[in-house]
Amino acid sequence: CSESDLLLAAAFVSDAQYNRNIPFKTSPEAVRLYHLYNHWMMRTATYFFIFLNLSLALFEEPAVYPLPFLATSVLEVLCLLVFLGRLTHFAKVTLHNVFWKDTKNICIMVAILLSLTDLAIYGVLRLYNVRSIRWSRIVRPIFLINFAESRQIRRAFRSIRNTLPEITYVFLLFMFSLLMFSLMALKLFGERNLQTAEGLPYFRNYLEVVFDLYVLVTTANSPDVMMPAFDFSSWYALFFIAFVIVNTYIFMSLFLAVVYNNYKKHLKNEIRKLAYMKRRKMIEAFNLLKEEEGEQFVIREARWKQLVKLVAPDTSNSHRELLLSISDDQQKGFVDKKSFVQLADLLNIQVVTLKIRRHPLARWVPALYGSAPSRLLRSIVRHRAFVWTYDAIILINAIFIALDEESPYISYAEWVFLALYIIEILLKVYTYEPREFFGKTQFWNWFDTLIIFAALTATILNATLKSTMKYNSQQILDIVFILRVLRLIRIVDSIQRFRVIMNTLINIVPTMLTFGGLTLVVYCVFAIIGMELFQGKIQYFPANSNAPHALECGNPALKDSLFARGKYCKNNFNNFASSFIVLMELTVVNQWHDILCVQPAKLYFIAFHIVMVIIIVNIFVSFILEAFFVEYSLEKSEVETAIEQKIQELGMGVQEDDLQDEQLLDNMESAEHELEREGGAKPQSKGLVFKIASKRYRTVDALLQRMFEAEIPLEDEGPSFEEILNLSPSSPLPRSPSSETAA
Amino acid sequence: CSESDLLLAAAFVSDAQYNRNIPFKTSPEAVRLYHLYNHWMMRTATYFFIFLNLSLALFEEPAVYPLPFLATSVLEVLCLLVFLGRLTHFAKVTLHNVFWKDTKNICIMVAILLSLTDLAIYGVLRLYNVRSIRWSRIVRPIFLINFAESRQIRRAFRSIRNTLPEITYVFLLFMFSLLMFSLMALKLFGERNLQTAEGLPYFRNYLEVVFDLYVLVTTANSPDVMMPAFDFSSWYALFFIAFVIVNTYIFMSLFLAVVYNNYKKHLKNEIRKLAYMKRRKMIEAFNLLKEEEGEQFVIREARWKQLVKLVAPDTSNSHRELLLSISDDQQKGFVDKKSFVQLADLLNIQVVTLKIRRHPLARWVPALYGSAPSRLLRSIVRHRAFVWTYDAIILINAIFIALDEESPYISYAEWVFLALYIIEILLKVYTYEPREFFGKTQFWNWFDTLIIFAALTATILNATLKSTMKYNSQQILDIVFILRVLRLIRIVDSIQRFRVIMNTLINIVPTMLTFGGLTLVVYCVFAIIGMELFQGKIQYFPANSNAPHALECGNPALKDSLFARGKYCKNNFNNFASSFIVLMELTVVNQWHDILCVQPAKLYFIAFHIVMVIIIVNIFVSFILEAFFVEYSLEKSEVETAIEQKIQELGMGVQEDDLQDEQLLDNMESAEHELEREGGAKPQSKGLVFKIASKRYRTVDALLQRMFEAEIPLEDEGPSFEEILNLSPSSPLPRSPSSETAA
Repeated sequence: CSESDLLLAAAFVSDAQYNRNIPFKTSPEAVRLYHLYNHWMMRTATYFFIFLNLSLALFEEPAVYPLPFLATSVLEVLCLLVFLGRLTHFAKVTLHNVFWKDTKNICIMVAILLSLTDLAIYGVLRLYNVRSIRWSRIVRPIFLINFAESRQIRRAFRSIRNTLPEITYVFLLFMFSLLMFSLMALKLFGERNLQTAEGLPYFRNYLEVVFDLYVLVTTANSPDVMMPAFDFSSWYALFFIAFVIVNTYIFMSLFLAVVYNNYKKHLKNEIRKLAYMKRRKMIEAFNLLKEEEGEQFVIREARWKQLVKLVAPDTSNSHRELLLSISDDQQKGFVDKKSFVQLADLLNIQVVTLKIRRHPLARWVPALYGSAPSRLLRSIVRHRAFVWTYDAIILINAIFIALDEESPYISYAEWVFLALYIIEILLKVYTYEPREFFGKTQFWNWFDTLIIFAALTATILNATLKSTMKYNSQQILDIVFILRVLRLIRIVDSIQRFRVIMNTLINIVPTMLTFGGLTLVVYCVFAIIGMELFQGKIQYFPANSNAPHALECGNPALKDSLFARGKYCKNNFNNFASSFIVLMELTVVNQWHDILCVQPAKLYFIAFHIVMVIIIVNIFVSFILEAFFVEYSLEKSEVETAIEQKIQELGMGVQEDDLQDEQLLDNMESAEHELEREGGAKPQSKGLVFKIASKRYRTVDALLQRMFEAEIPLEDEGPSFEEILNLSPSSPLPRSPSSETAA
Repeated sequence: CSESDLLLAAAFVSDAQYNRNIPFKTSPEAVRLYHLYNHWMMRTATYFFIFLNLSLALFEEPAVYPLPFLATSVLEVLCLLVFLGRLTHFAKVTLHNVFWKDTKNICIMVAILLSLTDLAIYGVLRLYNVRSIRWSRIVRPIFLINFAESRQIRRAFRSIRNTLPEITYVFLLFMFSLLMFSLMALKLFGERNLQTAEGLPYFRNYLEVVFDLYVLVTTANSPDVMMPAFDFSSWYALFFIAFVIVNTYIFMSLFLAVVYNNYKKHLKNEIRKLAYMKRRKMIEAFNLLKEEEGEQFVIREARWKQLVKLVAPDTSNSHRELLLSISDDQQKGFVDKKSFVQLADLLNIQVVTLKIRRHPLARWVPALYGSAPSRLLRSIVRHRAFVWTYDAIILINAIFIALDEESPYISYAEWVFLALYIIEILLKVYTYEPREFFGKTQFWNWFDTLIIFAALTATILNATLKSTMKYNSQQILDIVFILRVLRLIRIVDSIQRFRVIMNTLINIVPTMLTFGGLTLVVYCVFAIIGMELFQGKIQYFPANSNAPHALECGNPALKDSLFARGKYCKNNFNNFASSFIVLMELTVVNQWHDILCVQPAKLYFIAFHIVMVIIIVNIFVSFILEAFFVEYSLEKSEVETAIEQKIQELGMGVQEDDLQDEQLLDNMESAEHELEREGGAKPQSKGLVFKIASKRYRTVDALLQRMFEAEIPLEDEGPSFEEILNLSPSSPLPRSPSSETAA
């Protein structure tokens, strides 16, 4: 068993830990390259270039900040070279036939080729002053989706693809219903010679009726479309009520139901795959390092430590010792297979190592720090009343912010509040150990400190600018305002019930980023198409411009339109940033039929509505529903894994020592203490406290995975790699039958 | 064991069958009264008077159809007397202390008293020409909720009440977020001197900012509220994007999640209660009728038959025989406890008794009916191509409807289509047995026939009126148009995938009625309050009226408002019907800030939004989600109860006889046959076919209850009545632990 075996095992364990799924070559050089491939700097660099490539649209024509064509094309070629390099690196790491079978890689290569070709053609045509379309810009989001790092986004796309067949049937039925209602509307209202509020003919043309009623499904033209018929006869309101109940309430809920149902089904399947994959990788690693010991195979302590050092170089010695003492329960000097398999999970549990050290001041000026006034001060800060006092101060601050700032007293008060907040932070740092106060999981401490110091910096900067240059920077003032209000959020964390909801919201954030990615991809594609189709059709002029047709957004056809009347001129596709904002408005749906004013835009807008609102927003809602249900069921049932219990058992037997510093923990998470008592281990005699990072910062994925793992027996080696990859949602693998039906 | 015991047992069984939950006295007269109380005519009458009482608002001032005060007050007193009578009847039936402890009954009595008092005061004041408010009209919906018949509506209200505490916390957090964002908006935009598109000041006053942003949460003023800030600087769009993501997408989803989660939890609990209650009632009934037989207690066949005849007087003899042969499996002449307990479920399963009888024509004119051309004709009608031909005809019909009707050829075509459809129905009746064709569960046959004959009647009526009186009745024409389009819906049933979705939709209908009731209650209360507050503020004038301020809806304050510009004048609270339509528009949410134009209306509208959109619409969506999931999981897993299997087993052993009539079944439900093969029993030699009414007409409640019952062991007698009523959702009763977490 050599050094290279150890490296290979480390690669397996690290893959298991981060749920990576790359079939790499097992030769020593390949494994070394693979470790390099997974290095966080390489990954960050890839993401940087992906986003650079996407943001090129801001600088290319039609640009928000114009750059010469040469500059953007050089940047694009640079990005493409980086992608090619990354792909080559990947090719060296993985097996030859696996690499060429993977559509992801083929996609990236085709995208690089297309981009280069398009760039070359466009450049040559430009030399001859021929204007052509940069069509390859649509393929740019492919890099975001297809690089191996974006597993989450790909999963979301897979989930959408899997939902499509089911949603198609509901959609067809919905369209059928829409067409039937339109036919009825045409027959009922078409020959009445009615007029809309704008004096246009009402429900005369079948296609227009269909479109108007499609808009009504999104509720965007809700009473307007009904009013002419309603004015004619009150009974006609019944038609619209029936329409809204059937199409808006029932069909839209049905869409959500179909999307949610599929989302859940496929999520379960994906999580199951991940769990089996992890198990298998850990067994591979075990087989590489195992040695015979009596009747069983085991891994000796020394090799185990080498492995952990390789996999997680950042962990402290004491943390490693803790992990070992959990894995090697009876201190036999080796780790058996069953314990080894849990290593990936053990490494994933964020254990906070609290060195129980004295406060730095207690070491430097022990006499002063230990004196009676100092003790009193610290006990005041630790008291509950201290928290309440500051909650009261925040409330008073809120009132001051709401009041007008004209009076000088109020702007002085701002300085007072700033000072009070700074004193609070200093007092807390004085009382608690600073490295603990700024621990990784102390979200609110970091939040407070950052907000306060940013506000302090901005306020001082603003005051300096004002006194020296007699100039009020609007940007800085805006930031000061926002920071001032953000400060008030902290009060939410003081109330236990709000805290639970906030935890759900905080846990949702990581996966929200996945949806951010998904939305980015859809927005990019639609924005680029939109710019090619509608660029320059609408222009924005400042309020007091005297350009011709300034009031009609530079387009005489818009005279008297609702678009111009609503002063929507800035909602245009003239550059990448505006396009994004228009697409955001279309996602919110309201008034989209007014924003849409060019005739051929209808199809574009309907396509966007179907993709974004019916599919992606529903997936987003499904995700939030699922996240909430998972959080909620854990709140109630206190699922604790075997591993957590072990840490707890281990900590239990050790005597308590420094009461004062234990109080530190009590105070830091005082309100959370009831929930976390099981999670936090008692301090060890060495002056170490291990504490599982609080529940509130666990992601939904991790929670779901843990749930599923609890269902696989520990002895089960699971199916082979090939079997795992081909698992379908309906394949008969162990799971409780009631969970499907009772859910 | 006497006649009165049998009556008492019948009451228990009937309660179990219909999930009634009334603790009645067991004395013979009380039981007799109780049977009368539950008679369908008594129940229908109660509902009639409840709806009469509610609809009085249409005739009372401000009236849609004015009636003199004397008439409405006499009607109201009549209704109240009926309610009092019904309550007295109920009091005679139930135990004294139970009756007086039940808040439902107290509520009804208080409501009757209040209504009478108010009516008297109003009448007296009217005599002296003093105008007062009929405030007691708000209590009218109490009758709808509190009569024992409206179990479903009460359950929905209970579900809302149970959800309230949880929703309150989310709501407070949401309000906090709204207030914070408003504060930020005030600081950022308040001092910029911006103007809205209407030239009004933008974001100057804190309360107005809060209201504008609340409207933005509902997306009703989506781009408008952003445009002034966005025109000032593009960066400010980020503020609104953040606002929409946090408040519209995340918080509104959170509301749905909380409501859905609670809905599911309480639904499970209610269903569990119902299942235990049913078990207990059946055991009570058994204990009344049991006789000793060997070592066990049983019920003898004769008595069993008497009981079933009492409980379900409408069932045919053969049906009763079938039930007996299922309950008395080995034909021992008695029914044991275990089988007896299932009787309520057995009675609930809609078994269609198909008497395999010859077609009436085959009996009357056997030679003609059995002749070669007749056989050929019948085999054509049974052929798949016949269905396809008519699908094609429907499609061609759709095109003709969409075309303009000016040309005489097209209006002749309408007669041709009508004739074709009538021929289809006649051919089908000729081929299939008529009583079977119009069986209870043949939804589409009924649908077709009704639509076609209504269309025929209306068309003939219209043609007659036109030719004799030269008069085109618009109402009749409208109905003809609607019927013509509705006819096209049938094509959906030809496609298997659509059929599955349609089944879900059809199954949803009964519970939708519950939500209809719920909505009716909320609408009534808000409509009555709205009429008192806003009546007469806005007036509607026909288009060419020359009344003063006709364009401003009779209210000079509305000059130049968006309300008047959108021609919304008919959206007012001037009578009960208009109020309902305005409330419907507010439920759809869009433009509600424009519909709202009177200043103090804001609070009214926000209250309505919270009650209707945040709570009731979310419960409605939850209900559709749950219904869909239940339907979906049953589609896949084919849960069949032991009872259904028994019918199947029983049918199995019997020889087949009349092939031709078996084909009847095959053809009638041809596409459904794959799904239903397990459900339909083979014909018996007596010429009887039992068939379980198809899955598509089962309600969600019944499905859920069956699911839960599968989890209770048959021997389990369950808790006592008192324990059942006090069950809480978290009480530890048997259920699979994984279903809670894995769901």
